[in-house]
Amino acid sequence: MRTGVRWGLLIIVLLLGSLRGEPDSFGAADREKLLTEPGVYGTFALFTLSDSWMKYDQATRISQLTLFKGVIEQHREKIAIDLYLLRGLSDQADLMFRVHATELRDTQQFLVDLGNSTFGKHLKLVGLMHGLTKKPNYVPGLPDQLKADLKGASEAGPRPYAIVIPIQKSADWWALDREKRAAMMRAHTEASVPYIPTVKRKLYHSSGLDDLDFITYFETSRLEDFHSLVLDLKQAEEFHYVRRFGHPTLIGAVKSVDEVIEALAQ
Amino acid sequence: MRTGVRWGLLIIVLLLGSLRGEPDSFGAADREKLLTEPGVYGTFALFTLSDSWMKYDQATRISQLTLFKGVIEQHREKIAIDLYLLRGLSDQADLMFRVHATELRDTQQFLVDLGNSTFGKHLKLVGLMHGLTKKPNYVPGLPDQLKADLKGASEAGPRPYAIVIPIQKSADWWALDREKRAAMMRAHTEASVPYIPTVKRKLYHSSGLDDLDFITYFETSRLEDFHSLVLDLKQAEEFHYVRRFGHPTLIGAVKSVDEVIEALAQ
Amino acid sequence: MRTGVRWGLLIIVLLLGSLRGEPDSFGAADREKLLTEPGVYGTFALFTLSDSWMKYDQATRISQLTLFKGVIEQHREKIAIDLYLLRGLSDQADLMFRVHATELRDTQQFLVDLGNSTFGKHLKLVGLMHGLTKKPNYVPGLPDQLKADLKGASEAGPRPYAIVIPIQKSADWWALDREKRAAMMRAHTEASVPYIPTVKRKLYHSSGLDDLDFITYFETSRLEDFHSLVLDLKQAEEFHYVRRFGHPTLIGAVKSVDEVIEALAQ
Amino acid sequence: MRTGVRWGLLIIVLLLGSLRGEPDSFGAADREKLLTEPGVYGTFALFTLSDSWMKYDQATRISQLTLFKGVIEQHREKIAIDLYLLRGLSDQADLMFRVHATELRDTQQFLVDLGNSTFGKHLKLVGLMHGLTKKPNYVPGLPDQLKADLKGASEAGPRPYAIVIPIQKSADWWALDREKRAAMMRAHTEASVPYIPTVKRKLYHSSGLDDLDFITYFETSRLEDFHSLVLDLKQAEEFHYVRRFGHPTLIGAVKSVDEVIEALAQ
Amino acid sequence: MRTGVRWGLLIIVLLLGSLRGEPDSFGAADREKLLTEPGVYGTFALFTLSDSWMKYDQATRISQLTLFKGVIEQHREKIAIDLYLLRGLSDQADLMFRVHATELRDTQQFLVDLGNSTFGKHLKLVGLMHGLTKKPNYVPGLPDQLKADLKGASEAGPRPYAIVIPIQKSADWWALDREKRAAMMRAHTEASVPYIPTVKRKLYHSSGLDDLDFITYFETSRLEDFHSLVLDLKQAEEFHYVRRFGHPTLIGAVKSVDEVIEALAQ
Repeated sequence: MRTGVRWGLLIIVLLLGSLRGEPDSFGAADREKLLTEPGVYGTFALFTLSDSWMKYDQATRISQLTLFKGVIEQHREKIAIDLYLLRGLSDQADLMFRVHATELRDTQQFLVDLGNSTFGKHLKLVGLMHGLTKKPNYVPGLPDQLKADLKGASEAGPRPYAIVIPIQKSADWWALDREKRAAMMRAHTEASVPYIPTVKRKLYHSSGLDDLDFITYFETSRLEDFHSLVLDLKQAEEFHYVRRFGHPTLIGAVKSVDEVIEALAQ
Repeated sequence: MRTGVRWGLLIIVLLLGSLRGEPDSFGAADREKLLTEPGVYGTFALFTLSDSWMKYDQATRISQLTLFKGVIEQHREKIAIDLYLLRGLSDQADLMFRVHATELRDTQQFLVDLGNSTFGKHLKLVGLMHGLTKKPNYVPGLPDQLKADLKGASEAGPRPYAIVIPIQKSADWWALDREKRAAMMRAHTEASVPYIPTVKRKLYHSSGLDDLDFITYFETSRLEDFHSLVLDLKQAEEFHYVRRFGHPTLIGAVKSVDEVIEALAQ
Repeated sequence: MRTGVRWGLLIIVLLLGSLRGEPDSFGAADREKLLTEPGVYGTFALFTLSDSWMKYDQATRISQLTLFKGVIEQHREKIAIDLYLLRGLSDQADLMFRVHATELRDTQQFLVDLGNSTFGKHLKLVGLMHGLTKKPNYVPGLPDQLKADLKGASEAGPRPYAIVIPIQKSADWWALDREKRAAMMRAHTEASVPYIPTVKRKLYHSSGLDDLDFITYFETSRLEDFHSLVLDLKQAEEFHYVRRFGHPTLIGAVKSVDEVIEALAQ
Repeated sequence: MRTGVRWGLLIIVLLLGSLRGEPDSFGAADREKLLTEPGVYGTFALFTLSDSWMKYDQATRISQLTLFKGVIEQHREKIAIDLYLLRGLSDQADLMFRVHATELRDTQQFLVDLGNSTFGKHLKLVGLMHGLTKKPNYVPGLPDQLKADLKGASEAGPRPYAIVIPIQKSADWWALDREKRAAMMRAHTEASVPYIPTVKRKLYHSSGLDDLDFITYFETSRLEDFHSLVLDLKQAEEFHYVRRFGHPTLIGAVKSVDEVIEALAQ
Repeated sequence: MRTGVRWGLLIIVLLLGSLRGEPDSFGAADREKLLTEPGVYGTFALFTLSDSWMKYDQATRISQLTLFKGVIEQHREKIAIDLYLLRGLSDQADLMFRVHATELRDTQQFLVDLGNSTFGKHLKLVGLMHGLTKKPNYVPGLPDQLKADLKGASEAGPRPYAIVIPIQKSADWWALDREKRAAMMRAHTEASVPYIPTVKRKLYHSSGLDDLDFITYFETSRLEDFHSLVLDLKQAEEFHYVRRFGHPTLIGAVKSVDEVIEALAQ
């Protein structure tokens, strides 16, 4: 029966999707640019779901989630929005949004509208981190072989797990001369090369925008490889200058809006 | 429709504004003095908005916000009050007030009256920081060129983002002789010169008034420049003596009372 | 109108005061002794006011506050009780009691009775610190000039602000020999001499009674002087051995019971 | 009478057990593999029981707990689930689940389904830690005698107490060369040999999956031996590189689902 | 009138006591053994009283407290239970239980039963610490004179105050050789000799059972002496190896069950 309910929900959700147009098709080209170019603000917003949500019947939930989908679609014209289900994987939050925007005020407007929506009233913000994408700082100085390695193709197929690890460097790090830092980042980068096929990475620069220096974002289908990557990075000299690594470490499942709606409508 | 509601609200709000007199016109000269002179107490008050607020209908909200505006206007005769919408940009708070007063008791009276107002009952104080404006400590010793640079004009136009970063210095800092500290502050100041056109700064001295030594306040339209400024400051020697930088780092949008009312009435 | 309500309240409050006898007149001599002699326990109790209090009408509030005044009066026969309004100045608490007693059990009985009173049910205890007054440890070794300076008269007039800063010393401090500690305390004391006219100080010894070593208490009408005093103390060698300074730093307004009642009845 | 109620409950619970099939018999072979093989994800999920649960009558509780048992049984086909009653032994949580799965998404699905169940709505997640089982890192290099010792049989009989201690190593640890780390782990391992008969251990590797490096899990009937083991481990050189040991230290009683149901139905 | 109510309550409570048998008379010999022998588990359980308790009328309170007394009596057949009123002395908790048992599962059963009782539903567990009594580690090596001093009689009469200070030692402590540690403990012990007549001490070993190494427990009628003792201990070399001292420091009033009931029934 449970499975029956699930399929029924999925049908309703997909139907809603088809009536309103598939959100991911909005400005797909812009989304691609937001996700790959430098000078873009990446925001990670963490929410818990309040107990009150649990008390609604399914019809009310679906109707509220439909409006929720509408808010996302509307803003997807300007910003890129990704969703993650953290419930059952992280104790910090139930839901995570990753938003890419050229201006933080667009992200703010989305989060304010989300909070004002009927569904949003059941969400409690528990964390907000901002970072900026930049051209790789140290890549110009990398040896050609390492540059080629970094362009190595990643394996095809879905990467269902996403991990977010905030980083803060010590004052000693920032006091090092640029050459020394570049050398350490080169070793750090070399350590990560073997994991390129199975662990996708993205870096956000946070100094001044949050109590962090970097937000590191990972996607993988093989958490064991990700664990090995972290172990190797911890053994690089650069790790001595890491004052905060995680706290929190966030693990979630990459989900489409419809999948999140399905999970929350149950 | 959403936009329609927004404009409708704006009209009501502006009408209220015109009926009651424009608050920013009260004692504009005094406000200018409070914002520029030394010996003024600056208070940053952070509030979250309780869930109960969300349950009121719009008419009730507008009526409560009108009284809220009245409280602000009344106190603006003695103190300078600035508002910031943090919701959607910071996880610490929804709303921030920056208050300048010649006596902290005037700020206290404002915050007590605010708390006693119908709208204030929905606000939960989550942070309160006090600082004192002073004549620049180290400027007299600066080279003439640097002094001239510091007077460089900032670009015209609005600076929609405000950032507040509390600072605590280590015991080692205070043990340094004054000359050594002045030299380090000179280097720190030099690092910030290139950002004068796009990032406005203001400094508050907090030792003894809070668990801080300084409150640094920034306004900018270009967060990327602000991020670069912070990176440059972290590379100055003085940063070695910073025990607490942020925690929290607060980012908000600079708003007039009417804009805040419009945002909260929705 | 607001002012009218305030005066009305004041009249009621003063009337209550005159009917029940002025609390400060109870055992004034004993109060003087408790506030000046060594071997007395000083307790700082911090309370926030619950939201439920805000929902009562003014008549109910006044009736509950009258009973509250009764509890204070009753205990003032044995202990000295001072009140401070922290609301609008500190984010930690709304109300602070400073209690002086020869036995902590008398303070406990007062706080238990306060908690059991109708008004007390709206108070939430958020902090409790105990300290002991002692004869000045290092004064005997001070040069005569410094001793004379310490007896310098403080300026007349009210000192409306009170600041409480808890202190914990490092293990290194306690490991120093007594002579070295005395020398550092002498320098520390010398640094505070210029502020004697405008900043009144009192010291409580806490080791073992709380997670602190000292509670420092200040009263002033000039917060700017107090700020300068703290800056000077931070530059003394002794500050290197301070592991915790503040956390929290508490600022409040010194108030009589009637003034607190007036503030809370609004 | 109390005992009577207890027995009555037990009969109901056992009856439910026999009607639905004994959960522990599901895939017993797979459970054995999950609990012993490398490459398995171990998750520790900590819950407190909300006050609302206490207000239900016993019949409602039993009916909700029956559905709870159903959720566990359903998932036990794919994952291994162990339960621990922490109530009365740890202040962190009332209930702990230890889940072993080959994919974290299976664990996530279980925890999401648990949260959506009627009983789950009374559980509040307060902690979630993940680790990976691996082949012993340092065992290959151990002397033969030590290898033999490690295989020493543990005493028969139940081990009613379980203890979970999360571990984080310092950056200095990860910077040591592998040989040095292996030598320290050898000494650490030798120190634990005398406790093999009475204290059972299991290790999970967490780097990157949580803000930890290891989760150490113990079972014993003799807490005094466990205490001695910890004291001996603290005296090994390796302990110098432990940055976090516990925080929290979790002690619970190993329980079957039926025993937990019996405890919670009262 | 207040006093009248108090006496009335006391009479009811004593009557209940005499009807049900005086709890302290149960297994008095066993209690003596539990409190003096090594190999006993000591548990400190800290509770706050929920606001809901305050709303009951006195008759309901007394009836619930009578059942509470019954739970204590029932378990006193196997374990030793002491009660402390922390309300008004500590901000951490209102009530503390100290339980001595030969097996932690007996303590767990008591705390579970307490939580399930009608009164227990108003108690919120806020802390739980376990330790083990052991034969004094370092006493065998003490000089005869010190041994004799340690046996010095303590003054007669009640010791109304109890203080609990949790201790965690640094990794450096555990790395010292046994001889060095013994020498430092000897000096530490010598420092405490002068306080034997007025401050009673008891030590619990916690490593592995909690995030602590020791729980130190004190009883005294003279808090000033206790304060001096702590100051002297902080000046011993051993204090350099104390990483956590207190946090929390708990002060309470030693009370019989009847006295606690009287205090809570008001």
